[in-house]
Amino acid sequence: MPISTQQFASDNYAGACPEALDAMLAANSGSATAYGEDEWTQRAADNFRTLFGGDAEVFFVFNGTAANSLALAALCQSYHSVICSAAAHVETDECGAPEFFSNGSKLLAAPSADGKLTPEAIRQLATSRSDIHFPKPRVVTITQPTETGLVYTVDEVRAISAVCRELGLKLHMDGARFAHACASLGCDPAEISWKAGVDVLCFGGTKNGMAVGEAVIFFDRALAQDFDYRCKQAGQLASKMRFLSAPWIGLLESGAWLRNARHGNDCARRLAAAIADLPDVNPIFPVEANALFLSAPAPVLDALRARGWRFYTFIGGGARFMFAWDAQVERVDELARDIREACLAIAA
Amino acid sequence: MPISTQQFASDNYAGACPEALDAMLAANSGSATAYGEDEWTQRAADNFRTLFGGDAEVFFVFNGTAANSLALAALCQSYHSVICSAAAHVETDECGAPEFFSNGSKLLAAPSADGKLTPEAIRQLATSRSDIHFPKPRVVTITQPTETGLVYTVDEVRAISAVCRELGLKLHMDGARFAHACASLGCDPAEISWKAGVDVLCFGGTKNGMAVGEAVIFFDRALAQDFDYRCKQAGQLASKMRFLSAPWIGLLESGAWLRNARHGNDCARRLAAAIADLPDVNPIFPVEANALFLSAPAPVLDALRARGWRFYTFIGGGARFMFAWDAQVERVDELARDIREACLAIAA
Amino acid sequence: MPISTQQFASDNYAGACPEALDAMLAANSGSATAYGEDEWTQRAADNFRTLFGGDAEVFFVFNGTAANSLALAALCQSYHSVICSAAAHVETDECGAPEFFSNGSKLLAAPSADGKLTPEAIRQLATSRSDIHFPKPRVVTITQPTETGLVYTVDEVRAISAVCRELGLKLHMDGARFAHACASLGCDPAEISWKAGVDVLCFGGTKNGMAVGEAVIFFDRALAQDFDYRCKQAGQLASKMRFLSAPWIGLLESGAWLRNARHGNDCARRLAAAIADLPDVNPIFPVEANALFLSAPAPVLDALRARGWRFYTFIGGGARFMFAWDAQVERVDELARDIREACLAIAA
Amino acid sequence: MPISTQQFASDNYAGACPEALDAMLAANSGSATAYGEDEWTQRAADNFRTLFGGDAEVFFVFNGTAANSLALAALCQSYHSVICSAAAHVETDECGAPEFFSNGSKLLAAPSADGKLTPEAIRQLATSRSDIHFPKPRVVTITQPTETGLVYTVDEVRAISAVCRELGLKLHMDGARFAHACASLGCDPAEISWKAGVDVLCFGGTKNGMAVGEAVIFFDRALAQDFDYRCKQAGQLASKMRFLSAPWIGLLESGAWLRNARHGNDCARRLAAAIADLPDVNPIFPVEANALFLSAPAPVLDALRARGWRFYTFIGGGARFMFAWDAQVERVDELARDIREACLAIAA
Repeated sequence: MPISTQQFASDNYAGACPEALDAMLAANSGSATAYGEDEWTQRAADNFRTLFGGDAEVFFVFNGTAANSLALAALCQSYHSVICSAAAHVETDECGAPEFFSNGSKLLAAPSADGKLTPEAIRQLATSRSDIHFPKPRVVTITQPTETGLVYTVDEVRAISAVCRELGLKLHMDGARFAHACASLGCDPAEISWKAGVDVLCFGGTKNGMAVGEAVIFFDRALAQDFDYRCKQAGQLASKMRFLSAPWIGLLESGAWLRNARHGNDCARRLAAAIADLPDVNPIFPVEANALFLSAPAPVLDALRARGWRFYTFIGGGARFMFAWDAQVERVDELARDIREACLAIAA
Repeated sequence: MPISTQQFASDNYAGACPEALDAMLAANSGSATAYGEDEWTQRAADNFRTLFGGDAEVFFVFNGTAANSLALAALCQSYHSVICSAAAHVETDECGAPEFFSNGSKLLAAPSADGKLTPEAIRQLATSRSDIHFPKPRVVTITQPTETGLVYTVDEVRAISAVCRELGLKLHMDGARFAHACASLGCDPAEISWKAGVDVLCFGGTKNGMAVGEAVIFFDRALAQDFDYRCKQAGQLASKMRFLSAPWIGLLESGAWLRNARHGNDCARRLAAAIADLPDVNPIFPVEANALFLSAPAPVLDALRARGWRFYTFIGGGARFMFAWDAQVERVDELARDIREACLAIAA
Repeated sequence: MPISTQQFASDNYAGACPEALDAMLAANSGSATAYGEDEWTQRAADNFRTLFGGDAEVFFVFNGTAANSLALAALCQSYHSVICSAAAHVETDECGAPEFFSNGSKLLAAPSADGKLTPEAIRQLATSRSDIHFPKPRVVTITQPTETGLVYTVDEVRAISAVCRELGLKLHMDGARFAHACASLGCDPAEISWKAGVDVLCFGGTKNGMAVGEAVIFFDRALAQDFDYRCKQAGQLASKMRFLSAPWIGLLESGAWLRNARHGNDCARRLAAAIADLPDVNPIFPVEANALFLSAPAPVLDALRARGWRFYTFIGGGARFMFAWDAQVERVDELARDIREACLAIAA
Repeated sequence: MPISTQQFASDNYAGACPEALDAMLAANSGSATAYGEDEWTQRAADNFRTLFGGDAEVFFVFNGTAANSLALAALCQSYHSVICSAAAHVETDECGAPEFFSNGSKLLAAPSADGKLTPEAIRQLATSRSDIHFPKPRVVTITQPTETGLVYTVDEVRAISAVCRELGLKLHMDGARFAHACASLGCDPAEISWKAGVDVLCFGGTKNGMAVGEAVIFFDRALAQDFDYRCKQAGQLASKMRFLSAPWIGLLESGAWLRNARHGNDCARRLAAAIADLPDVNPIFPVEANALFLSAPAPVLDALRARGWRFYTFIGGGARFMFAWDAQVERVDELARDIREACLAIAA
């Protein structure tokens, strides 16, 4: 694509990476049994088990809304509640999907300055009420990395799972950008998931370079009971499943899942570094994954828009830039230059 | 693919056709706005409006379970009921999805010898009760072609919609293989849909040659109100929507949608013709689309299985063969020969 | 009430019996903790435990729709199915309530000549499908007595629970008229409930002489987990619970629960006996509880209507007469005379 | 009841008032058609139409959880949202019932210092998002009086309905203690309901002196379409409806509905006046209905508990006292004396 047209408004703006596409095309040969009873689906699931080094149950669904909502519904009854950060995607951007899939489970949103959930906030929400007039806390969900681009450390996840265990809560991880967290921490995927106490992980494929698809990974197989029925009933069972599972083979076997994520993270840091000396613009949150949230004077944002840049300002009034697997370094540098020039212009 | 390995157990066993794949690959270029605000999605929707010659609202969802269930949910409240044939896919093979999406709408299944729903059956079910202890009939759904491979004629659809209008019912068409009906009747898509009184059509993409995806077409725009919210909440809004919509461009602009369907229909008729003289095997239903349901003695079915053929026998104990866009004529003929030989063997 | 105005169209036409009302009035004294934390609710639950001779969990809800639907929802996930007779009230007269409370569990209705469910029918429905495209059978529900006025014997219930155990299904009993079954069989309530393998029983209060209210009795306490939350969320937790629970004390401690039922049963048999010699009218089903379903020539039914009798004809075209705790023997005899005269008139 | 045992912890601790009970007993005569097709139900509904001077549709349900949740479900689809105060009962004390009945409608809770919702807060919540990733605002619900015992004036309700009309939102009023608001304002019920722009009112019976039951009043009849089906499916249709409706006749025709409320309000003010001179204890909110929220030093609260007083402290750490129709003036004075003595003791 021409460099001048690439945008960093969302990592959903990117297309599919070659590894994912090639694997999808390779799977398009001959007759294959429908609904997941095919070799590609088996292999993709095995790839995940190898990646995590355990005996997880793996399911492939169409998108993140469904992945997270179905996982939460599997952990909850309708009268249960789900503890999350007030910044969590399930709370702010799923149009009530978790409540819909679970038939009414209420989200209990903890205020959070930086988007992260803390053991203290969990404890407070989980213990504030214990009467039948309030939905019974049952699950904690954390986003890794957060919607603010922060990454929970292994110790932070462990501290959260410890309070979950103590209080009888299950721990769900919304990993829409899970690969970026792995790349950022340089750790084994198992370290920040099941070894740290996560019961169910939604591993994002779309933001990792796929055209469509997410994986739901149950580290505790007992929790996965009948999850196939749940997926089917909720419209999340692909008939030609190989097209949903094969791209994972491409991502996982080639290592592209981690490479793609590293590249996104690198671009975010590259942009941050390139404008670090500018006094007028500042990162709102530390850059730990593939996002840069920039606080900037309105004239700077206007100038960027005038130069054709697209970005969202729904968090803190700043500009969000997200870097996908396909981010062109030249274009990142172009953005850095444009920010610099816009700052100079208002200083003049 | 090697001819000897192709199976006709299901049209979901086929891969994606070149026209759909090429369009998907063509859409994989550069940044595109997410969630359907892209040029391909607009163009695909326009293609449908052109095809139907009207001002329909078009939505792209992941699979048929969701397409039909969301459409029915949009037409129903939880205390409503949906009239269908006892053979309808929504009744027999969706694991309660319509009830789930609508939060309880009950399906009223009319017994049917051949799978078709009749005006008389609709009237009988819709008027048998009119008290609040029974869910209020609100929608009729017909499958075109039926699960038994029959095609409703234009007059039949009109007769059904007439009774719907009279009784205040909406008419939904499950068109998982809608293209096959068009090919079979040789009629304009509009003739057996909105011009015949259909309010909402689910136009199947997967069985028409796509890797994934169906279209929900509201001919009455008022009924589509907020359907985008409904899709989002139910996990049916693709973030990288272009990959779900672009394949339609490939199918519709090239005419592959009709070509693929015709080919499937032709193969079903070809097989039927090739074995028409065999007294031991007979079509259970007339061959009007891409399916052949064959009644055959058990030894014949056993012999076919022994030769490696896969098929389902869930309707009438016969064998179902379905022909997709990719059916190889040589393989169809091979099947015919194997049936003939199996018949000769038992006659001997 | 004047004898001439009493009707036997439904046992819901009766008022509340003195024992229930007196207990309700007696509970109307002083301050009582809300939501069931009161002495009457404790005592009523204890009364049930004494009656059944076990350690059941007991909940009080407002009506039968909710009692049965909540019990089934507690046993099911949305992708499960419930096996019942095609004549079951949950299938025919609850406006989709079981599907609503469970968020989509499908009822699998077995055709039945007399309204009863058989082990064979259960086995057939429970084993006909075992793929994820069909809701997974999870519960069997039987109505005791049936909607046709038949009573399952202890052996019949045991045979049903045996097949349930074998197939991994839970057994629910809709006991809207459970007391009438006990009166009819002359057996201990425990004999046809938990000792015969019933997991959950909905014990009807309204048809037993109460103004409002039913009891849900879990013989397996593990199944009752969080049922209090479920009741609360579903609008079935009474704030002034004593008014819902105290009437049970009146019914159970006085023995009125059985007396009322016996009286209803006696009246049904009395009517049947009084017209047994009339060749034109015949019971459609044996009279085993408090119902008489009468097949009769249309002119006889017309004549009865002309004399002011109200009755429903929704089963088999016959007339249904139901006898409640308040049925006046003189009025029963009056009905018998009117039937006789109507028969004589058409014979003339 | 002995004065010394009466508690003011909740107005649900009270029994049923004589007018309600007598009417219920009077209705207990003879056969009555079930499910609301009886004379008492008709008369009770007519009484409401007379009271409000309009042509409202009136439904009788079992409790407030159901009344409010069903009314909201009738106004919403699952992808809609409901704007309320963070102190609203539907948000804090219904165990997710609104989400359950609506299959997922999200509550948007506005922070509020005193429990009231303001036009500004409504506007802010209703306009903060307008994309499909966030549930579409559809209804505003206010509690009259609020959970903090405050009463919206006619002008306040009008201002709220004006912003609702402007933004295309429906206005629902949770009137669990609606009578107390009427008594407090001295206004006609119509003035603070439909004439001020309220679309649907849930008129509380339980806290107004009934044993069980609430009324749902649709001032816009179009919004009541099929509400009877909705009630039936949701387990809120009483078979012996007369016992749910007749008590309203007793309350409304005798004027007890207003008398009871006035008495509760008077008692709250009486207590407030009796301790107004005590510097250590202060009302947290102005006393406008039948509640007094008292901030008091911990030793004072402990002393009250030691003397046998029961009360809740879930709002602001203060003690809540609620006065029902049966509050004994001598007992109110006893409470005042005990508070005074406790204050004196800690001052000593």
